[in-house]
Amino acid sequence: MKELLYGAAYYDEYMPYDRVEQDMAMMEKAGMNVIRIAESTWSTWEKREGEFDFTSLHRMLDAAKRHHISVIVGTPTYAIPSWLADKADDILALTHSGPGIYGHRQNMDITNPIYLQYAERMIRKLMEEVCDEPHVIGFQLDNETKAYDTCGPRAQEMFVESLKQKYPDLDAFNHAFGLDYWSNRVDDWAHFPDIRGTINGSLAAEYAAFSRGLVTDFLKWQAAIVAEYKRPDQFITQNFDYDWDARRGGLGLQPEVDQFAAAEAVTIAGCDIYHPNAQDLTGAEITVLGNISRGLKSDNYLVLETEAQGNLGWLPYPGQLRLCAYSHVANGANMVEYWHWHSIHNAIESYWKGVLSHDLQENETYRECAIVGNEWKRIGQHLVNLKKDNRVAIVADSRSNTGLIQFPMDTEDTHGYNRVLRWLADALYRLNIEFDVIPAQAEYLSRYEIVLLPALYSAKEEYLQALSDYVKDGGHLIATFKSAFANEQIKIYADRQPHILHEALGIHYDQFTFPKNVEVAFHEKSGAAREWMEMVFADTAEVWSRYTHPVWNRYAAVTYNEFGKGSAMYLAAMFEDEVLEEVLSAFLHEINFAEPHKISFSNVRYPLVVKQGVNAASEQIVYVMNFSDEEQTLAIPVEAKELLQNQTIASGEQISIQPWDLKILRIC
Amino acid sequence: MKELLYGAAYYDEYMPYDRVEQDMAMMEKAGMNVIRIAESTWSTWEKREGEFDFTSLHRMLDAAKRHHISVIVGTPTYAIPSWLADKADDILALTHSGPGIYGHRQNMDITNPIYLQYAERMIRKLMEEVCDEPHVIGFQLDNETKAYDTCGPRAQEMFVESLKQKYPDLDAFNHAFGLDYWSNRVDDWAHFPDIRGTINGSLAAEYAAFSRGLVTDFLKWQAAIVAEYKRPDQFITQNFDYDWDARRGGLGLQPEVDQFAAAEAVTIAGCDIYHPNAQDLTGAEITVLGNISRGLKSDNYLVLETEAQGNLGWLPYPGQLRLCAYSHVANGANMVEYWHWHSIHNAIESYWKGVLSHDLQENETYRECAIVGNEWKRIGQHLVNLKKDNRVAIVADSRSNTGLIQFPMDTEDTHGYNRVLRWLADALYRLNIEFDVIPAQAEYLSRYEIVLLPALYSAKEEYLQALSDYVKDGGHLIATFKSAFANEQIKIYADRQPHILHEALGIHYDQFTFPKNVEVAFHEKSGAAREWMEMVFADTAEVWSRYTHPVWNRYAAVTYNEFGKGSAMYLAAMFEDEVLEEVLSAFLHEINFAEPHKISFSNVRYPLVVKQGVNAASEQIVYVMNFSDEEQTLAIPVEAKELLQNQTIASGEQISIQPWDLKILRIC
Amino acid sequence: MKELLYGAAYYDEYMPYDRVEQDMAMMEKAGMNVIRIAESTWSTWEKREGEFDFTSLHRMLDAAKRHHISVIVGTPTYAIPSWLADKADDILALTHSGPGIYGHRQNMDITNPIYLQYAERMIRKLMEEVCDEPHVIGFQLDNETKAYDTCGPRAQEMFVESLKQKYPDLDAFNHAFGLDYWSNRVDDWAHFPDIRGTINGSLAAEYAAFSRGLVTDFLKWQAAIVAEYKRPDQFITQNFDYDWDARRGGLGLQPEVDQFAAAEAVTIAGCDIYHPNAQDLTGAEITVLGNISRGLKSDNYLVLETEAQGNLGWLPYPGQLRLCAYSHVANGANMVEYWHWHSIHNAIESYWKGVLSHDLQENETYRECAIVGNEWKRIGQHLVNLKKDNRVAIVADSRSNTGLIQFPMDTEDTHGYNRVLRWLADALYRLNIEFDVIPAQAEYLSRYEIVLLPALYSAKEEYLQALSDYVKDGGHLIATFKSAFANEQIKIYADRQPHILHEALGIHYDQFTFPKNVEVAFHEKSGAAREWMEMVFADTAEVWSRYTHPVWNRYAAVTYNEFGKGSAMYLAAMFEDEVLEEVLSAFLHEINFAEPHKISFSNVRYPLVVKQGVNAASEQIVYVMNFSDEEQTLAIPVEAKELLQNQTIASGEQISIQPWDLKILRIC
Repeated sequence: MKELLYGAAYYDEYMPYDRVEQDMAMMEKAGMNVIRIAESTWSTWEKREGEFDFTSLHRMLDAAKRHHISVIVGTPTYAIPSWLADKADDILALTHSGPGIYGHRQNMDITNPIYLQYAERMIRKLMEEVCDEPHVIGFQLDNETKAYDTCGPRAQEMFVESLKQKYPDLDAFNHAFGLDYWSNRVDDWAHFPDIRGTINGSLAAEYAAFSRGLVTDFLKWQAAIVAEYKRPDQFITQNFDYDWDARRGGLGLQPEVDQFAAAEAVTIAGCDIYHPNAQDLTGAEITVLGNISRGLKSDNYLVLETEAQGNLGWLPYPGQLRLCAYSHVANGANMVEYWHWHSIHNAIESYWKGVLSHDLQENETYRECAIVGNEWKRIGQHLVNLKKDNRVAIVADSRSNTGLIQFPMDTEDTHGYNRVLRWLADALYRLNIEFDVIPAQAEYLSRYEIVLLPALYSAKEEYLQALSDYVKDGGHLIATFKSAFANEQIKIYADRQPHILHEALGIHYDQFTFPKNVEVAFHEKSGAAREWMEMVFADTAEVWSRYTHPVWNRYAAVTYNEFGKGSAMYLAAMFEDEVLEEVLSAFLHEINFAEPHKISFSNVRYPLVVKQGVNAASEQIVYVMNFSDEEQTLAIPVEAKELLQNQTIASGEQISIQPWDLKILRIC
Repeated sequence: MKELLYGAAYYDEYMPYDRVEQDMAMMEKAGMNVIRIAESTWSTWEKREGEFDFTSLHRMLDAAKRHHISVIVGTPTYAIPSWLADKADDILALTHSGPGIYGHRQNMDITNPIYLQYAERMIRKLMEEVCDEPHVIGFQLDNETKAYDTCGPRAQEMFVESLKQKYPDLDAFNHAFGLDYWSNRVDDWAHFPDIRGTINGSLAAEYAAFSRGLVTDFLKWQAAIVAEYKRPDQFITQNFDYDWDARRGGLGLQPEVDQFAAAEAVTIAGCDIYHPNAQDLTGAEITVLGNISRGLKSDNYLVLETEAQGNLGWLPYPGQLRLCAYSHVANGANMVEYWHWHSIHNAIESYWKGVLSHDLQENETYRECAIVGNEWKRIGQHLVNLKKDNRVAIVADSRSNTGLIQFPMDTEDTHGYNRVLRWLADALYRLNIEFDVIPAQAEYLSRYEIVLLPALYSAKEEYLQALSDYVKDGGHLIATFKSAFANEQIKIYADRQPHILHEALGIHYDQFTFPKNVEVAFHEKSGAAREWMEMVFADTAEVWSRYTHPVWNRYAAVTYNEFGKGSAMYLAAMFEDEVLEEVLSAFLHEINFAEPHKISFSNVRYPLVVKQGVNAASEQIVYVMNFSDEEQTLAIPVEAKELLQNQTIASGEQISIQPWDLKILRIC
Repeated sequence: MKELLYGAAYYDEYMPYDRVEQDMAMMEKAGMNVIRIAESTWSTWEKREGEFDFTSLHRMLDAAKRHHISVIVGTPTYAIPSWLADKADDILALTHSGPGIYGHRQNMDITNPIYLQYAERMIRKLMEEVCDEPHVIGFQLDNETKAYDTCGPRAQEMFVESLKQKYPDLDAFNHAFGLDYWSNRVDDWAHFPDIRGTINGSLAAEYAAFSRGLVTDFLKWQAAIVAEYKRPDQFITQNFDYDWDARRGGLGLQPEVDQFAAAEAVTIAGCDIYHPNAQDLTGAEITVLGNISRGLKSDNYLVLETEAQGNLGWLPYPGQLRLCAYSHVANGANMVEYWHWHSIHNAIESYWKGVLSHDLQENETYRECAIVGNEWKRIGQHLVNLKKDNRVAIVADSRSNTGLIQFPMDTEDTHGYNRVLRWLADALYRLNIEFDVIPAQAEYLSRYEIVLLPALYSAKEEYLQALSDYVKDGGHLIATFKSAFANEQIKIYADRQPHILHEALGIHYDQFTFPKNVEVAFHEKSGAAREWMEMVFADTAEVWSRYTHPVWNRYAAVTYNEFGKGSAMYLAAMFEDEVLEEVLSAFLHEINFAEPHKISFSNVRYPLVVKQGVNAASEQIVYVMNFSDEEQTLAIPVEAKELLQNQTIASGEQISIQPWDLKILRIC
């Protein structure tokens, strides 16, 4: 990217009156230089079947051009016009809840040929209008695409066909999925029962994987159409989004999309990152979700949506909007784009507020954007295209995510996988250990000194063997409970657990329960175990902590094992964050972990957050951010230029950072 | 009304054996003089289609006559016979939940012509039987009528037709409702999407308003039929009921009926008022809901249903039944009728208990009724037709109620509007400020010195202008957060908020959030803000209180503004009741509010409740009621005759009132 | 039974690889001597319609025989093959939730003739294969059979037909069920409304009773088929299961089956008893549910399923598995069979773990089983066929259970009946009073000195009269609130309550409410009343406790009445367990209750649990069990031989019992 992009999603068609010229002027004044348009406009531009009218599109494009604002054009296929829904009974997806009803977005059947035919025509018409515009810099495919739980006859036939390919022998299929259970055997591919009724978690998981495949196929199909029109300098992206856990208020890996596979459809990764604000802002979501996005193409990424004022109750404190914008860029983002420019006056998202409130005037949020925009004009060239070289990686895996949805630890919810993922990832974040996120594929392992496995419930034997070899060859592995337990059809392995890895980990177990009145202690810290505990026997491993409990104290909660040239830690239960931080720190110390290519801020921890990398000019850039209500001080270990205030900092100098403020250091 | 009416709903048809003579004798002995009958008897009197048998009706009427009991006859149209449900697939309403199933009451489609035809025949047959009976004093139309969420094709066609009338131009309609959003545009009136799927809150709110119109039309249609038969001395009423908030255990404005409009169908307002008892009895529901009823025709009203023993867990303490009966009358009711005389031995309401328990014998409740009934025989002439002259009014608005159902403050519930209404109304109640309830119509304003606007979310510009002019001309306005925010299609106004009123209030805002760890303090009182807070800037207004919070303390929570000859207060958040009482008291003091035509009991507050008015003989009547478990004392400021004990009280005399007891003063 | 049976359900067809020989050897080594097979194998043995293959069956039978393991064969009819579900639209039951979908078990319509025809063929084929095997000792009919809420047209027609038989006169039927209410009258048997919509609790309860009848009929139909094949020495049983209350974590009487009636289909009673473990194990479920099972045929019974490792979070502490096994046998069970031998690697029950974990190796649970199995080989002849002679009985009644489902005390749940049943039963358990469970039939009463009536909501007049006569003739009755309130159609009795029993109890009441801030005190103990309280007037009864409350203290909470030669206690509210234990102890003392045929351990209470009986050799056997984490001591009042350690204990000797351990005394 030539420069940092800063802007907002823009919906001329939702405006109560014509403001496009005024809005573009306001954006330019705030230092904004990009908008995303068009992704929900199908009924606006094709009001009636076959009647296309792009007048308002060109009005928008022209105004943007006048104000030096680049444009990302979305294909408007995620929300269909009512006339299209009327074309056939199955345009809207038949789901586990039954037939669809028109009104909501993202409820069509993405395998429906009629839908696809009309969508293709719409995309082509739109591309013809915009592809030659010089300030159209790229295209977004659809919007937060999923398969929307389509379970219609067509999709199910496609699914059965895919099974037949994988399992030419029906008996082998029945055996692989354990379908003798409750007489669920399939006697004939032609009489495959409705998948919606299955009580077989393996079959349900396979359908979930098939559905993720539909998303990949759909995005590649769109990408191919767009590619026919786009210039070489124009990018293709998608705004991948994340799993929302309302109970915990957190986000994690999206179970409905295999983002690593789907990202093959795009030329640059993109994402939508939302998070709480005010007293609940930590920056952790920006980091872990941003790291997923950075991992999709192993490159910089675009934040296509993040909140300005956000949803009900999310109004940021002063300074937080700016701090978050920098935090995205510090993490490797090349764009921060708000959803959305203006708050909407009608319909379901009226209280998901934009930069402007409903009065459409300059306000506190706009003024804070203007600070960011104008700072980026000044110093953005130092910040754009920040490259990271991390030696720590977390494995994120869709099948394991599905595994813990089908077989949840806590039967009242389906976000267990992400709770474990976030448990590890957020601890690294608070320890200021920057990390990558990688898929469960062997070829990634050798790049890292430490690999963390949060609840890798479902794993192929080859991958588990690769992990074992990784340790033997000198790698360091940290695995949690519920890892290496089931195969890729989430059939539980029938031998010693954790399957294959028990050797590298030096432990085994076969029993587990819910921890009640159980604590895990390490060094000075102690706290309750929660959600899950395994009854681990240490074989060759050293026991770092046993459960604090009158009966279960015979079992290990944390173990450490040297295996070959490497070492492997096992966390047999989830426990308090503070204890985890102690355990991880001890592990890093034990293996003498160091990243000499980075500036080391020893003992600087959250709420001070350090992120660093190298820009295109090979400058080493370090962000130090204060995610708290209180002023923080720290010593800077090397001589540096602070870019925001353009001041020199001497090596060892103590600096202070205001609440929700930051320093950006260019290392001298 | 010639006398106070006291009685119960009576269901001869539900009796396990013939008791009508015995029951009427028991009622007469208890001083009861009215029953309501017939509203659920359709299948009893038309057992098979076209076979009418009114034997039991006349048996009831004859027995009532013998015991000097007047009768209100209900039209039996809210619960249909099974044979009628079988007439067509769409007799039962198609709702958001799908097709209906026979069994429940109030689930028919009130627009269905077959239903209407059979209902009309039933009403006419019944009227022929009863209209000439001298002791039949009036008629109740149907029962707690709603549109029962009818969304069938017929109703939706009627709805679309109504839209076409309002919006001859389809594009204008699409723009007014913001239907470009998520490609929801309607391309052709003939292809209007099923309203049940809409995610457009404006469209859903418009359908809700349309459905309220169906209720008004239905009641007027019934009233016209009844009017063909009724004598001039016979009244027509309906038992309007209220919104039930199970979480809070409270009641408020009914969102499914526009009671002010629907009341045009009746000659006297009626209502059903239920409330908790025992430790949870406050009398607040009796007051606020009674005030709504009194406002419907600006006249006395009938309590057609209130509980005797009530629902599970509502058994009143000794004295409470009597205190409530007086509280209704003190509020302007001319009738108190229990639901119902006897407890039912079968079916869903067996534990909604009547005056008599299932054993059908005299019991504690009956004996307490007998005290009331016989007291009213003695002193009722002083109590009936009590007229009130209040200078304070609260605006209650169906569209705003719907607005906060479509866009709730708290996404887990839909009673936010009523929580705000009750927050203001109950504070007035506890301060012993009697008030009227008025619709959002300009012509009512000039009658009052103070008008309160609880969350008037949806308002026409003309009304907002009228409110502004009201203040300018010397009125006093108290508006809360979420007022004047959206138009009547609940499209949010796109300029300075609160729309139009910001000038009279002297404030503006464009941001808001949930209050977390935020307090509002005033004078000596302080307490948590809850549910909602707006970031208010005072323009010309004086700030009476800012939020207590490290960041949000820049914003005003309570403001006071002088505008023209009047003044206007704004409450930017909901906060503790005690703080509200302080704020309201200060406002009253600031504007020198006084009601010289009433007896002033300074500093007498809940649990002592004072209600007053003037009877037909121009006597000034004052009730002083003790809504607590403890004896209370107060000084009576003027000479008075206490009616219950027939004693004279000297001016300034201290009197004491027993728990759940009262005094009724005729001022000398 | 010749010996105690000890084993597990065995599913060769669920195994990931062929282990049958290895598994049988492991079982034999552990002292196990029985397996249950086949009940979910339909699709395994009839993979395609009409193609039967029993190879794996015989492999299992042969291996079992080699290892001296007896086999119980289940008829595989509770989980149907997908090809059978495809035979007709109504093979799967139409329920209150609509049409079924294939996948789950126990969702077929057990009245469907096609299902029955195929099921019969399957049963006959299987019986032909197994009936001659000498080590096949018995047959289990189906599995935890219910009517699965079948509400299809066929079932409803059968229901209406049954009503017509009972009520030749339609008007009488309408009156009996109170169908005038809400115009619900049935005008013609031919137009009986869909039962699924009814709001009439009596009608719903009648349908529930009809559905229980379907279960009885179905089991008798299966039993007749099996009886055509079985040898005289082979038994027929069913694994009756219990009502699961997830909120309270407890079990109680199954509302969907009349187990007393259904047990006529079997030759020996069987049951599935599950319960929490670890910190939540009390042994109470084993006792109360075991007592129900023992009562079904007034004889020893089989525990066909109980957990080994159990469901999520149920892993037993060391010693608990063994203690539970003995507790079943001490209660009269002749078999303890785990569900199941091995943990399952696919599908919905993968985390309902068996004896073996997923690794299929010896583990902690297996080793504890082996202790039990080998102890039973040694001392089992003293333990088998233990006969009990109890003088205390609790009445358990399906109709009353349904009554409190239709009219719950606490509207948020439907387990109220079982909460009351368990309240009484568990108190007896903690007091070490062994009891029987009997149906509400007069002929059982005279066998007992004390009969307890937990919430006998629905009762025929004849039975109530029999209870009254029982007291008059010298019996002792303890009845709780909500007893004797409604008839068998759960129509509430319309005279003095408790109906008929008020005379024997010496009390009456007509009002009730929820207890808020109400306590019940007795002797030194006091605690909150909960769920329900009745306003009881003592007529001839002595008041043992009044409510502790400023207003409700006028009413009795506990009364005691002498009537004829007997006495009757009434508990008008539910209250704290400790208070109940005091009240029951006082009652026992008052009536001089004694069981001279048993060994008396005065003041030995839970967590020490005493169970006793007489074996076939007329030896008196006493179990003393420690259900706690702490060592307990007690004095043994008579000379005895301790069987486990083969030691003699002198009369009066103090012994100590380790946590979760036990002693078995053969009295000398």
